Amino acid sequence: MEMIRVSSSSQPSKVAGALTSILREQQNVVMQVIGAASLNQAMKAIAIARGYIAPGGYELYCIPSFYDITIDGQVVTSIRLSVEMHEKEFFYHKNS
Amino acid sequence: MEMIRVSSSSQPSKVAGALTSILREQQNVVMQVIGAASLNQAMKAIAIARGYIAPGGYELYCIPSFYDITIDGQVVTSIRLSVEMHEKEFFYHKNS
Repeated sequence: MEMIRVSSSSQPSKVAGALTSILREQQNVVMQVIGAASLNQAMKAIAIARGYIAPGGYELYCIPSFYDITIDGQVVTSIRLSVEMHEKEFFYHKNS
Repeated sequence: MEMIRVSSSSQPSKVAGALTSILREQQNVVMQVIGAASLNQAMKAIAIARGYIAPGGYELYCIPSFYDITIDGQVVTSIRLSVEMHEKEFFYHKNS
């Protein structure tokens, strides 16, 4: 599965473009972020990318998880966002 | 639909508990955050809550969107996270 690393200086609109182009090839992609500022850019990118794929009848779903990575010998907890593209009718809510 | 407001000082484990208890009553809930630090706490809460609902065979899916709100006469862009609980087998991936 492809992995996109998003940093605090990443531009959400550019990340959204990358996300969309990968998701048109395969149904899911993982985004990895370290820290609140990077997570913010990543989530904005997902919100923007939703607009790119919406005309095709698709929606983006994101699943966050913790993932420890080692940087310069130090363990850092990153957040991995698994982003999935599904057709909208996939999600029928009994209660909404 | 219920709305949870998450701030930068919210404890992710407590938010995860609230999220889980609402999701056991209804299939989706909206979390509203303003700023990167609050978004960080909200996403951690979702990651933690996944562990609470996983034994029942469920998974959490989050959909971010921008939402303008007015605070003291000023327009602020918040992020709304629509969190949905679905059975795991709902999500079959052709490409994974």
